[in-house]
Amino acid sequence: MNLPRRITMANLPMEGIYTPNITPIDAQGRVDEDQLCAYVDWLIERGVHGLYPNGSTGEFTRFTAAERRRIIEVLCAHVGNRVPILAGAAEANVRETIEACDTYGAMGVSAVAIVAPFYYRLGPEAVYQYFKEIGDHVSVNVTLYNIPLFASPIDVTTVRRLALDCPRIVGIKDSSGDIPHMMRMIAAVRPQRPEFSFLTGWDAALAPMLLIGCNGGTNATSGVVPELTRAIYEASQRAQWDRAMQLQYRLLPLFDAMIGQPEFPEGFRRGALARGWNLGQSRQPLSKEQLVAAQKTQEQLVQALSELGAWLPEISPAHASPSNNSSSGDDFIERIVKEVMQQLQG
Amino acid sequence: MNLPRRITMANLPMEGIYTPNITPIDAQGRVDEDQLCAYVDWLIERGVHGLYPNGSTGEFTRFTAAERRRIIEVLCAHVGNRVPILAGAAEANVRETIEACDTYGAMGVSAVAIVAPFYYRLGPEAVYQYFKEIGDHVSVNVTLYNIPLFASPIDVTTVRRLALDCPRIVGIKDSSGDIPHMMRMIAAVRPQRPEFSFLTGWDAALAPMLLIGCNGGTNATSGVVPELTRAIYEASQRAQWDRAMQLQYRLLPLFDAMIGQPEFPEGFRRGALARGWNLGQSRQPLSKEQLVAAQKTQEQLVQALSELGAWLPEISPAHASPSNNSSSGDDFIERIVKEVMQQLQG
Amino acid sequence: MNLPRRITMANLPMEGIYTPNITPIDAQGRVDEDQLCAYVDWLIERGVHGLYPNGSTGEFTRFTAAERRRIIEVLCAHVGNRVPILAGAAEANVRETIEACDTYGAMGVSAVAIVAPFYYRLGPEAVYQYFKEIGDHVSVNVTLYNIPLFASPIDVTTVRRLALDCPRIVGIKDSSGDIPHMMRMIAAVRPQRPEFSFLTGWDAALAPMLLIGCNGGTNATSGVVPELTRAIYEASQRAQWDRAMQLQYRLLPLFDAMIGQPEFPEGFRRGALARGWNLGQSRQPLSKEQLVAAQKTQEQLVQALSELGAWLPEISPAHASPSNNSSSGDDFIERIVKEVMQQLQG
Amino acid sequence: MNLPRRITMANLPMEGIYTPNITPIDAQGRVDEDQLCAYVDWLIERGVHGLYPNGSTGEFTRFTAAERRRIIEVLCAHVGNRVPILAGAAEANVRETIEACDTYGAMGVSAVAIVAPFYYRLGPEAVYQYFKEIGDHVSVNVTLYNIPLFASPIDVTTVRRLALDCPRIVGIKDSSGDIPHMMRMIAAVRPQRPEFSFLTGWDAALAPMLLIGCNGGTNATSGVVPELTRAIYEASQRAQWDRAMQLQYRLLPLFDAMIGQPEFPEGFRRGALARGWNLGQSRQPLSKEQLVAAQKTQEQLVQALSELGAWLPEISPAHASPSNNSSSGDDFIERIVKEVMQQLQG
Repeated sequence: MNLPRRITMANLPMEGIYTPNITPIDAQGRVDEDQLCAYVDWLIERGVHGLYPNGSTGEFTRFTAAERRRIIEVLCAHVGNRVPILAGAAEANVRETIEACDTYGAMGVSAVAIVAPFYYRLGPEAVYQYFKEIGDHVSVNVTLYNIPLFASPIDVTTVRRLALDCPRIVGIKDSSGDIPHMMRMIAAVRPQRPEFSFLTGWDAALAPMLLIGCNGGTNATSGVVPELTRAIYEASQRAQWDRAMQLQYRLLPLFDAMIGQPEFPEGFRRGALARGWNLGQSRQPLSKEQLVAAQKTQEQLVQALSELGAWLPEISPAHASPSNNSSSGDDFIERIVKEVMQQLQG
Repeated sequence: MNLPRRITMANLPMEGIYTPNITPIDAQGRVDEDQLCAYVDWLIERGVHGLYPNGSTGEFTRFTAAERRRIIEVLCAHVGNRVPILAGAAEANVRETIEACDTYGAMGVSAVAIVAPFYYRLGPEAVYQYFKEIGDHVSVNVTLYNIPLFASPIDVTTVRRLALDCPRIVGIKDSSGDIPHMMRMIAAVRPQRPEFSFLTGWDAALAPMLLIGCNGGTNATSGVVPELTRAIYEASQRAQWDRAMQLQYRLLPLFDAMIGQPEFPEGFRRGALARGWNLGQSRQPLSKEQLVAAQKTQEQLVQALSELGAWLPEISPAHASPSNNSSSGDDFIERIVKEVMQQLQG
Repeated sequence: MNLPRRITMANLPMEGIYTPNITPIDAQGRVDEDQLCAYVDWLIERGVHGLYPNGSTGEFTRFTAAERRRIIEVLCAHVGNRVPILAGAAEANVRETIEACDTYGAMGVSAVAIVAPFYYRLGPEAVYQYFKEIGDHVSVNVTLYNIPLFASPIDVTTVRRLALDCPRIVGIKDSSGDIPHMMRMIAAVRPQRPEFSFLTGWDAALAPMLLIGCNGGTNATSGVVPELTRAIYEASQRAQWDRAMQLQYRLLPLFDAMIGQPEFPEGFRRGALARGWNLGQSRQPLSKEQLVAAQKTQEQLVQALSELGAWLPEISPAHASPSNNSSSGDDFIERIVKEVMQQLQG
Repeated sequence: MNLPRRITMANLPMEGIYTPNITPIDAQGRVDEDQLCAYVDWLIERGVHGLYPNGSTGEFTRFTAAERRRIIEVLCAHVGNRVPILAGAAEANVRETIEACDTYGAMGVSAVAIVAPFYYRLGPEAVYQYFKEIGDHVSVNVTLYNIPLFASPIDVTTVRRLALDCPRIVGIKDSSGDIPHMMRMIAAVRPQRPEFSFLTGWDAALAPMLLIGCNGGTNATSGVVPELTRAIYEASQRAQWDRAMQLQYRLLPLFDAMIGQPEFPEGFRRGALARGWNLGQSRQPLSKEQLVAAQKTQEQLVQALSELGAWLPEISPAHASPSNNSSSGDDFIERIVKEVMQQLQG
């Protein structure tokens, strides 16, 4: 048995933190393309390794098929080769989904992510057939997206079957947050598909997920504190697990404050606002009481980000490389501290 | 306190059994419009009180927005004034949904049905806001659609608030199958909105749901044995509860066989096939094993329908009106017996 | 196929409403035997058909094995032949349970009720083995007790196997509240075991459960408003389903107020108090906030019982038999009206 | 804010791996006291840090109160000061539980573990009251036991309130397996109660749980492969996280095979048998089919243990200390390899 460890190859398509970016919306309720470009520029500057538009955080179900296509088109043109794009590409049915995949592939995404069928709760056999049909007919790399809270679960056996049967399927994003489940998937797939990517979508367990061998994450918090999620990732790369764990303890209350905010992803919109990014109102209408609660969360986030800024410099020096290597996670932390402090002061 | 009883008015928009009809698909995977028209003709002849296209049984999520619109257009033109049409009209977001509602209203549907937001699980406050926004801006009557298995639940308080705040919201289809929940809704709404319709979508409890005061049902089994569901409804109208209950005991194993068939609504497609209606393959691909299981279910359904045909005449005479009144549920039962026998012999 | 209807035989062991009586507790936290006897006298006078001590409402898990035994001993001696006693007899394991069953049988109970194994969640096979082992070795009639909220579920196949394999197993109390589930059990068992009793423990659906063929219920509300649950049962016996349903609509908010009261069965203790029965404090300690909430519920119950008393006489005359037959449910209703009014005035 | 890190004090009551030991049963169905003593001797020799009798694995609910007391009495007398004993002490109600706690304390246990109330599902307020009442009146240290699968959940707020209000409550065993939940508890309690113990009962996540700061575990697998669980613990103590993770990947399939075996804890009885320990039949009767399945699992476990034995020596040398320090986890691994090989050969 090969050990189910993460391999590190230069050509591995998906490693690191991909941001499932919020979709900015303008005052008329349309996709705000300018703000989208500006926002992803900021994310890329802060060190996210990739973008994941049209994910759950991007509220893909609340946009039309034409809007979803336009979002990918805009991003591909704007981002260029700076970071890879993993594009959410689930449409109404297999045929429409395959078309979207190929369209996005032609636009230049590095891969697409397909959520398991939702609304109807399908069994493993049907989930397999669905992805097999897609995997056999697309001309772009595909990652599975398991989010049992919202969609039909993809079980370990199904992941393994798909990994063995479909070369085009190159990874899975799993948002279950279940560590042993992720270990079971890695143990079942990695020996035969060592380049298959395992990405966690459950920010609350990012560091432990990296410990057990995940290649990275698609984490909504990286759209708010990209420096912190990157620092966790980099600590894991250096096997600085104590540091990764300490950073994780900092990330957890931020995540809890944002995820607990009704209605998802309103908390993350508020988090972005606390960082200075007004990404507009979700298309899901909120009541006055909910808006008051969201405002309160936003104030808590501003406070929490301020405390984070006051804390990070203390631990940074011990780990900072003397050469001020710009790829260091600690640099990112120093930057967040300064910026947060400036934002709060300014 | 007014008693939470069903009122019976000539102008009540929704009473009786509405069939959430399967969407026929041709060999190329397209909506089979001819077969759709022929099938609903058969349903109407067998006595369903209304049609409910683009419901869960109609697999609305697996069609594009354009296909959904076309389905309603075709049906409105074909059905005319024969029976009312309740059109599923949920789209990606509030704005798209309002547009669909108004379009369908202009096409001539008597009302639209809007499922609670799905994928994301919303809380009561957001569910209220969603329907309030729709209810305030449409020019057609709206029924809520509660199916907690697949979508955000609509709780009693929310139904009551919407019923009191939105005159355009005129009913609810509830597929929870929870009798006390339905009673709580009826008790909370009917005293102030006596014309508000309560329709059950859980065929397994149709007769008890009618006993506790439901106005009717939107039942997938009515697309397979419309005579039987109509007979249950008519027995309930005459307060023949023993008979309604006996018919319900006949309906239950048919429902169980079809609902238990992975993947929904494949069992109902097989049920229709057992009645002679080839409505094609669902867009959700099935494995060989699933197709074998579905075939077995189909054979069981043929057998069960045969037994049903052999049993119904025995109870019919006792209830048959001497004048052979064509609106009698017993007539329908006699018809199903004959037809089923002919189909099985021919 | 025989129709799955209820048969009515003189020797049928369990028909009607059995009260899962609260266990009165004195100021020192001991079982209050005098109050227990007085309370069950009152229940019997108000027309309950049987008693069900050591059930969930009786908090059997919070008493020692010796206390549970003593409760049955006291009740058997006190009640005599007035009404049958169905004794909860689940102990730590099969051997202890069999001993308790036989002890209770010797004391004179008409049957014992055994809840499915709890704490551990067992599968159907182990549930079957557990009851089979008991059913094969006891010298008293046994009813199964299915309460999936608290204990391992007993599925339809298991009930059928046990009914066919164990003559000593004579019925099932089902507290799932799931109407189609009850129908499936009745359809699976009654044709071959027509005397097998189906009792519902979900008061919120008592009337519909009687419609679909249940023999009766073990309903906690019958410990508070025994007149009302008996009236529902008697209406069902006369096939007065409209009346049964109207009474059910009266029972539902009372049940909801009591079941919703944390922590079960505190709401029912408060309900009994609203009828004048101080049955003491549960052994589960409650916080001040909970006691305040319970007091508020109690006040609502007093108000609700007053409204019930004002309403019942209005419908009583229409159904009262001219001979003032003392077995009439309406007599019970008249009595509750008078008593509740007296309690509220006095 | 203090960092929520584990402190390491000489006097810390609970650190390391406590074995929730199976209760050996003889051919007559009685507790096999001789085998119990022999089995715990073996566990102690293989390096478990403590024992946890009358836990879920010990099937505490299937024994009488007298048997539970006897088990603790026997173990205290036999084990002496070799390892601490954490005794499960939940009884029918608060009064009985307090009595058991004090009795066990007098017998010499180092602490007791009290599972949250089960059967009834209590809310946080009642769970708090229950433990507060116990915590205020016992003369022995108490650990909370959270196992939401079987008993009322203990939420973070409740753990924090109890930790702050009750000095006698000194730790929590959490079997939820939810990493972020454990982090939230540690973050909420450790700053003010640094000596409060956090033990995980979910073997599948032992290494990640230690990474995020748990003090140890009460893991059923340690009753089968005590050398492996100890090796994981010791790797964590040395911050050898890669090694801990590799060992965890070895533990996971063993755990899965044993936990998945109906009915719990039969799989662990079979695991012990695969190590040479015949601990008898559980008191929960099993069917023939279940016994066949259990036998198959046992054979798989023998095979898996053989593979484990063939693998461990290969990694041992790299980590072995030159002085052959007898407290090294690697020594344990060498021992298991030899023993397993001998058992399989002998």
